[in-house]
Amino acid sequence: LDVSRVRFNDDDLAPLSPRAARALDAMVALEAGAIANLDEGRMVGHYWLRASGRAPLGVNPTAISEGEKAVHAFAKGVRAGEVVGRRGPFEHVVHIGIGGSALGPQLLCEACGDISGPITPHFLDNADPDSVDRLLALLHGALDRTLVSVVSKSGLTPTTMHLTMELEAAFQRQGLDFACQAVATTVGGSDLEIRAREENWLASFPMWDWVGGRTSITSAVGLLPGALTGVDVKAFLDGAATMDRLTRVPDASSNPAVLLALMWYLVGNGRGDKRMVILPYKDRLALFPRYVQQLVMESVGKERDRSGVVVHQGLTVYGNKGSTDQHTYLQQLRDGTPDFFVTVVHVGEDRQGPELEVIPGATLGDHLFGNLEATRNALYERGRDVITIRIADLSPTSLGALVALYERAVGIYAELIDVNAYNQPGVVKAAAEPIIELQQAAVQHVRNARQPVTAEEVAIAIGRPEAVETVYKVLARLAGHSNRGIVARAGDVPFAERFHADRVRTVVT
Amino acid sequence: LDVSRVRFNDDDLAPLSPRAARALDAMVALEAGAIANLDEGRMVGHYWLRASGRAPLGVNPTAISEGEKAVHAFAKGVRAGEVVGRRGPFEHVVHIGIGGSALGPQLLCEACGDISGPITPHFLDNADPDSVDRLLALLHGALDRTLVSVVSKSGLTPTTMHLTMELEAAFQRQGLDFACQAVATTVGGSDLEIRAREENWLASFPMWDWVGGRTSITSAVGLLPGALTGVDVKAFLDGAATMDRLTRVPDASSNPAVLLALMWYLVGNGRGDKRMVILPYKDRLALFPRYVQQLVMESVGKERDRSGVVVHQGLTVYGNKGSTDQHTYLQQLRDGTPDFFVTVVHVGEDRQGPELEVIPGATLGDHLFGNLEATRNALYERGRDVITIRIADLSPTSLGALVALYERAVGIYAELIDVNAYNQPGVVKAAAEPIIELQQAAVQHVRNARQPVTAEEVAIAIGRPEAVETVYKVLARLAGHSNRGIVARAGDVPFAERFHADRVRTVVT
Repeated sequence: LDVSRVRFNDDDLAPLSPRAARALDAMVALEAGAIANLDEGRMVGHYWLRASGRAPLGVNPTAISEGEKAVHAFAKGVRAGEVVGRRGPFEHVVHIGIGGSALGPQLLCEACGDISGPITPHFLDNADPDSVDRLLALLHGALDRTLVSVVSKSGLTPTTMHLTMELEAAFQRQGLDFACQAVATTVGGSDLEIRAREENWLASFPMWDWVGGRTSITSAVGLLPGALTGVDVKAFLDGAATMDRLTRVPDASSNPAVLLALMWYLVGNGRGDKRMVILPYKDRLALFPRYVQQLVMESVGKERDRSGVVVHQGLTVYGNKGSTDQHTYLQQLRDGTPDFFVTVVHVGEDRQGPELEVIPGATLGDHLFGNLEATRNALYERGRDVITIRIADLSPTSLGALVALYERAVGIYAELIDVNAYNQPGVVKAAAEPIIELQQAAVQHVRNARQPVTAEEVAIAIGRPEAVETVYKVLARLAGHSNRGIVARAGDVPFAERFHADRVRTVVT
Repeated sequence: LDVSRVRFNDDDLAPLSPRAARALDAMVALEAGAIANLDEGRMVGHYWLRASGRAPLGVNPTAISEGEKAVHAFAKGVRAGEVVGRRGPFEHVVHIGIGGSALGPQLLCEACGDISGPITPHFLDNADPDSVDRLLALLHGALDRTLVSVVSKSGLTPTTMHLTMELEAAFQRQGLDFACQAVATTVGGSDLEIRAREENWLASFPMWDWVGGRTSITSAVGLLPGALTGVDVKAFLDGAATMDRLTRVPDASSNPAVLLALMWYLVGNGRGDKRMVILPYKDRLALFPRYVQQLVMESVGKERDRSGVVVHQGLTVYGNKGSTDQHTYLQQLRDGTPDFFVTVVHVGEDRQGPELEVIPGATLGDHLFGNLEATRNALYERGRDVITIRIADLSPTSLGALVALYERAVGIYAELIDVNAYNQPGVVKAAAEPIIELQQAAVQHVRNARQPVTAEEVAIAIGRPEAVETVYKVLARLAGHSNRGIVARAGDVPFAERFHADRVRTVVT
């Protein structure tokens, strides 16, 4: 971690020292089992996933290591063609999960998975029916060799469950038994876990209530897809464990997580005044900025501090990869609004394949590094601050270290600005549900109406006059599809359509 | 385009009307062939690509339509298995290009390409040797059925040319003839065009000096990979042409591009004070926010206005896709720093595949819309502004319209804030080259030195004492690879390593 291109001096750091010390104390309490997620009354223990011996009373270290072993054994069996579906070895895995249950696994597979191994991973992370269709088209003829991995901590996540139903229906259409090709990752005793047991799914892996979605990459959530695609997940956990040790160091000046958090604080005045642009110079790390975006923004983007004072905190993160992004928005970074700082990630090792000089004495990798170094220098000269993180190679070990570094830096930064890093009160996970209920009521009313009705009439009739716009959109949307049982009759002016039921054509269920 | 959830009133718009009118006049001049890219003394004519009859004197409309036809005929032949390599029909295309020559093509293929057609597209857009290796691993055994498409306007872009050398070397290693599987897209008379002609490449397609990289998606740069992957590129051009017509309307109040640009201006006080978060609720549009990011940030992120006054303008864009992003950073958007506005893209059509009710009366698509509507409402209630763009379906036509809408909105916004939208003075395209020259000089010195030398000694000896840090990094980097001819001998303290030549093992060329 190189902060030599961030403009600060020791006088800036001094006043923060007592706060940094308190932040480290808070991390000690966290790791000892403090109830840090007050909203849900939960401990926050992703650190115990890579050092089960540190789990506090009430958390069973054996269960942690047994869970890890089960993932290992299962993935090894699948890859060896020993754990099979009804019709032979698996060739694909469809990972179904949203938010933290998607991004971490995707990062791990993309950064460290084998590109031509026996198992090809696919991800469904959104309620987009189009993506289900496209994935099924891609898997056409291969569904009988496809493992479906359903990930939901609570076992109730609507989108995850809906996507699972879609896959199940596709299996049924082809006369395939879903259960014998499905696995679940969920908290013990959840609806999903019970269902997997009762329906005799192929396997079930444990998730823990003390692990949040955005820090679940070192749980079975990340380890299972990682191991299935050939990632050495043991090395990944070891890398994270090593970084955990290095970032527990009480001397703030030699603790990289503290240093990183202090830089964020100083650059953005503890208010997130500057955006964090992350540029990993390695295509395989292209998802890393989005991973950090989720980790940071969901953790520190809070309305109130822990005393309840309205603070509207946040730290915006974006970025894709260097040098690609140099050709997209570096123009603005160099010349435009100075409202950001940059973090470049430099990977020492270039490649495994044959080396080639593209000009005398210089390879493609030399040019990639040249781009990094030139960009870092140019931005600094223009008055922008640049943090540099260097890893010798991109391996499961270094990725584990990188993830653990940011996890702890976020925890420390949240302490510095006094917000709770472990809740997400602003995210209504069931965001769609009230709209769906409105839709159901509106459709019911249209079906029962004796004559075509306007959206306004429907909204008033169902007691939601204030929601007339949404009622209109919902009905117009259904009428725009030929099989949803609602027909629109054009009105004289926009939004004056009248809707009635189409009793002939209704949705296929 | 729905701006009903943006807080403004007609009094805010009135003072901007004269400027909006002047902006439209400037667009008329642009389309009539004004030299808008003053830095390079060029016209800016991407509009003529979809209406060649509008090309001004000096631009040959027949050449534009002939170019388009050539792309069509070639792609049709490849897809039909009539245009073939030495060993039969093509199955893959590797598109090599950077910046605008990569992002537009990727967007077009991902949004509208056929997922299980005869040609699978792959993209190399970065100087990352690792990605070359991974792509070659993926294409193992299929290189003889792989078309390589090299895109460089100037025909000199270093990264593009280096990636081409890498592919050429891979072909050679397998005894394959590169030329008969390679095509070029470049300006007539460029080095690349001459080379393609002399080496008898399979085909060459025209690019025009009046088309900038970030607006090249409707040139052969985008059309070729699009057509190869089954996109109806004629419909794509028609969609763009239709939007061009709709956004030439002089009455600002019924011109969607003017309205969009005015919203950006009002929300951000003409200073980009708020970040533009783009959330398309359709996975196939996940690259759209990055496409707009490049288009907007490279166009308006400028140090000076057109009078030369230092203004440090910019308009930061980020985003990925809804509802996925609701689980990553919506927490901060709802509760945190109110330093942004949101644009949601709503696609009417859900899917082509069989419909399924995931709860009584409601499908997955209903839930996706429910997420969009709930998020839009929740953000607005919290005081955030939301622009909504609705397209009936995601087709080549609507994508063309969307692209043309943003292209023109950016041009108009740049007029409103008085910056040149068509240059990129801050982007030193050859960023890596000075570092590579330093590397060559440093290596030369180490090779000739009689004894191991420190980075500082090298930097002084080559007359670059100020660059000692980069000299150190370059030599340490080379020494970190076993085949680059440089060895490091550890020093007493960090950075005190001494470097010497390794005359036995040198780079494979």
